Amino acid sequence: MDLVGAIDVGASKTLVTVRPVAFSAWEPRFPTVCSPTPATPDALVGALEASLARLAAMAGGRIVAAGCGTPGPLDPDRGVIIHSPNQGWRDVPLGPLLEGRLGVPVRLGDDANTGALGEAILGAGRGADPVVYVTVSTGIGSGIVAAGHFLRGAHDSAGEIGHLVIDPAGIRCGCGRRGCIETLAAGGGIERRARAAWARAGSDRAAWARAGSDRAATPLTAEAVFRAARAGDAVARRIVDEAVDALAQAFAVVVAMIDPERIVVGGAVGLGQRGYIRRAASRARQRCLPESRTRLDVVPAGLGRESVLAGAAVMAARAREAAT
Amino acid sequence: MDLVGAIDVGASKTLVTVRPVAFSAWEPRFPTVCSPTPATPDALVGALEASLARLAAMAGGRIVAAGCGTPGPLDPDRGVIIHSPNQGWRDVPLGPLLEGRLGVPVRLGDDANTGALGEAILGAGRGADPVVYVTVSTGIGSGIVAAGHFLRGAHDSAGEIGHLVIDPAGIRCGCGRRGCIETLAAGGGIERRARAAWARAGSDRAAWARAGSDRAATPLTAEAVFRAARAGDAVARRIVDEAVDALAQAFAVVVAMIDPERIVVGGAVGLGQRGYIRRAASRARQRCLPESRTRLDVVPAGLGRESVLAGAAVMAARAREAAT
Repeated sequence: MDLVGAIDVGASKTLVTVRPVAFSAWEPRFPTVCSPTPATPDALVGALEASLARLAAMAGGRIVAAGCGTPGPLDPDRGVIIHSPNQGWRDVPLGPLLEGRLGVPVRLGDDANTGALGEAILGAGRGADPVVYVTVSTGIGSGIVAAGHFLRGAHDSAGEIGHLVIDPAGIRCGCGRRGCIETLAAGGGIERRARAAWARAGSDRAAWARAGSDRAATPLTAEAVFRAARAGDAVARRIVDEAVDALAQAFAVVVAMIDPERIVVGGAVGLGQRGYIRRAASRARQRCLPESRTRLDVVPAGLGRESVLAGAAVMAARAREAAT
Repeated sequence: MDLVGAIDVGASKTLVTVRPVAFSAWEPRFPTVCSPTPATPDALVGALEASLARLAAMAGGRIVAAGCGTPGPLDPDRGVIIHSPNQGWRDVPLGPLLEGRLGVPVRLGDDANTGALGEAILGAGRGADPVVYVTVSTGIGSGIVAAGHFLRGAHDSAGEIGHLVIDPAGIRCGCGRRGCIETLAAGGGIERRARAAWARAGSDRAAWARAGSDRAATPLTAEAVFRAARAGDAVARRIVDEAVDALAQAFAVVVAMIDPERIVVGGAVGLGQRGYIRRAASRARQRCLPESRTRLDVVPAGLGRESVLAGAAVMAARAREAAT
């Protein structure tokens, strides 16, 4: 059986799976190997080769193409990871390295675009066009799929919604500017703002205790902030309310520019905090043109943590088709 | 010679021209007929038929397809103008009416998308991909062309940048909401804000006089506001500065979502107030990600008032190709 290899190289962990080259749905009949992302490109290539060989043997087939989603920025044409801040990698030609090892075509895509492709073709966006996939986790990214292909932009930067500045006087972002949407609406920003707020002033410790969280003892996560807000903590409620507003603005921007048939939301925060996403979608409706309100359709990612893997499989199947 | 007919039905005037079906540049060797837009759809169809017949006879050819840009909202698949506020028309099947009269395929497109297609294929966006065409006149619209085709969106509303709310406490927009980008950055909004400001408080009448404008005697146009700002009028300067800020935000949204290789700016204000557009582009650069700053390329429409006509000709040529 001819197989495609699907790879999702995340900041901390890497997922690998295989599918028949002619798959038409994302069925869970093949195992997914999950392991910590190796520290060097060489180790990564070796680990991917070994995982794919093992999976192909289990499935009784051979790999004919592979696709790989990684955090950007990258150059999909040359298959090069330009910069991977978490690994400290620069200019890693992961595509050519893998092609050399596997002897098959390999396609690289950034994780927002690859996840968008997976959800649009095989997940919650199936049947809709265009689809915008918004991933809300430590940061916020998005990918746009129109007529089955993602909109790359001129410099592979289309969909950079997380770094749209909406509050020039706001807090400093990792990109060096102030008030990017993700400083308000993403997990990392929510954590930083809560940490700063609690350092500045006392909060409702009783509410934290009721929420089962001790901010002195446990690491302050975005999840803890959402929990505290639900338990009534005033500072947490304000932070979450501002996050709702910023994410609503992100959705409104997506609607105004792309007019998607569906917005699919993934990422750890996007999938974990459904109430947050619903509130933001509802507030976005108030900001949309009257005729857009009823048709704004925001749904959770259908493939859970496998959106990027599925998109990688789609890229691989297309690479195979182009090569034959 | 086989010709395509190109039509631009504006709120007040209608332009008609012809081109050889196999044109590859927008050369001015064919005349453009300009006349007031008739008050009824029947009169419009009759006038268009007569103009095209005259132009075809002059060019010594026959019309084999036609394209027509009109203000939205419209349904391009059925060729229906859903609503034309200036004419008071509703559900006018202009495409089928023209097809019946001319006996050739006719394509309808909204003016922002049609203008975008014209500029991307034949104008200032030529060779760039994607191209976003932003038209700044009474209102603000935009069209997105990627890989030679415009991004329609699910409801033909992609690129509705003018109605993105950036100031929920701002002034009322024609759409019923407050603080849409066009209430701040478009000609209509600038006029209304200046009128309100002068009604509220006195302005620097001497500056107005120096600018050759008498606000008591002449109609208050956006052009007069820009002139007064240049002459030093404090109220006009503030209004223009806020317009620069809002248009910069529109450009920043376009860059974040679409990552265009080039932004082409047309429309009466866009073409008439080059300094305004330059200031907004420069301010947008400060709002963009560092790597986007140097590559933000904002240029004036290359086809002047004929962007929509050129796009209509492209649509007609494609309709002809699809039909043969």
